[in-house]
Amino acid sequence: MDNPRSDRVRSVAALSKRSVRTRTGRFAVEGPQGVREAVRHAAPLVRDVYLTPEAMARYADDIVGPARAADRWVHEVTPEVLAAMAGTDTPQGVLAVVDAPAPTLDDVLAAGPRLLVLLTHVRDPGNAGTVIRGADAAGADAVLVSEASVDVHAPKVVRSTAGSLFHLPVVTGLDVAATLARLREAGVRTYAADGSGTTLLPGADLAVPHCWVMGNEAWGLEDDVRAACDDVVRVPIHGLAESLNLAMAATICMYASAGRREDGRCGE
Amino acid sequence: MDNPRSDRVRSVAALSKRSVRTRTGRFAVEGPQGVREAVRHAAPLVRDVYLTPEAMARYADDIVGPARAADRWVHEVTPEVLAAMAGTDTPQGVLAVVDAPAPTLDDVLAAGPRLLVLLTHVRDPGNAGTVIRGADAAGADAVLVSEASVDVHAPKVVRSTAGSLFHLPVVTGLDVAATLARLREAGVRTYAADGSGTTLLPGADLAVPHCWVMGNEAWGLEDDVRAACDDVVRVPIHGLAESLNLAMAATICMYASAGRREDGRCGE
Repeated sequence: MDNPRSDRVRSVAALSKRSVRTRTGRFAVEGPQGVREAVRHAAPLVRDVYLTPEAMARYADDIVGPARAADRWVHEVTPEVLAAMAGTDTPQGVLAVVDAPAPTLDDVLAAGPRLLVLLTHVRDPGNAGTVIRGADAAGADAVLVSEASVDVHAPKVVRSTAGSLFHLPVVTGLDVAATLARLREAGVRTYAADGSGTTLLPGADLAVPHCWVMGNEAWGLEDDVRAACDDVVRVPIHGLAESLNLAMAATICMYASAGRREDGRCGE
Repeated sequence: MDNPRSDRVRSVAALSKRSVRTRTGRFAVEGPQGVREAVRHAAPLVRDVYLTPEAMARYADDIVGPARAADRWVHEVTPEVLAAMAGTDTPQGVLAVVDAPAPTLDDVLAAGPRLLVLLTHVRDPGNAGTVIRGADAAGADAVLVSEASVDVHAPKVVRSTAGSLFHLPVVTGLDVAATLARLREAGVRTYAADGSGTTLLPGADLAVPHCWVMGNEAWGLEDDVRAACDDVVRVPIHGLAESLNLAMAATICMYASAGRREDGRCGE
């Protein structure tokens, strides 16, 4: 493919728009790390992989080979075509169009989760992506995302997940109140992560199945959401900082959960 | 002040350039949180505070009053002037020009530090700022920054520190090898935070004074730097993620240090 103005190129580039992603149920993954993880962990969702000649050679073993072995379409395109398909940043010669996975809260609860995180109103793409990556690293069972939050298939979110989007279920479009009720029914305790909490993180009961509930970057959690949670937990601040940013707070909470599970000596 | 093209406005706007910051020894702080923390914790460094009429009223108690009480220059400017002074993002009606603090490694070591972090080659402004904010929250005694790292007084770094730049010493322009040698002489153990480490974070000796040594976002730590550290420590990855991003890894390490210090039950 060498025509940057072809219909195909336009249709891929259009995936930078939320309305197009919603209508088609697809999104674009840019860069070798994300594409490799998509091919490795979610091959049936991968529709097309586009690579420049240089990237075809460089990623022969970890992208091109596995994609072809899984019967995925692999296309060699000119750098101009790839640039026209991609968003703002350089895609390093690789881009894939992928069907958005659509796990449900039912699926997640049926698997008996031990550690979850719920984003109730996260607006910054980098924060959302970083929380998904942190949830993956901390061994969370899924990430739950409210309908009021940023679209997790937006290019900046996808990039900052560094492939983690394909490692664990990310359930989107949730109603927060209904989700908290469902978690409670399923025996998953809900912990609002909030600077107003009276329970300090080291004192929280992390031995039971639980879900961290995160608010908005700027104004935190809404009062009714905080009140609906089983506990309000505060990450201790040792210095003069007012707070941690949302992604850091979420990651510290999830790592505390992971550590408590692994390390019996430090249990309650 | 109402002329966006005046010399004064130009000279403030020019602080977005590293060369001008280096020559003048000053930098700009945008937004109420950063300016408030500068006035509160580093008033002698604050040269001028600029506010729109709306911001003058809104921040009368937490910026304007304290700045005047500390004999700082407070200027009312039009929104157009403030926009011309500021960088890419909206400064929410407030901007200050501040002398760059210049703490030295000698100052830091003389105070008998227990917890430090050294950024050897951090290039992303958001990462650098987030590490400074995380270091503050975790109660670190200082942040050490190599000469090869991003300028911590660049607008994006300043913004992502959320005021923490004025809460703890940030020593810049350091030579990494010489710094590691100085830390060793001072009895501060150096821990390379690196995915190649054989010591897992929960097993690291965090009871002694130590410094976390962080590498580059993309390619991690240089071999000779890793070899010069007392230990190489890995944050456990529980899921399928390859790694954590640099700011998250640094924050998790520093919070582990803080937790170990606070919580004797979980010490080695």
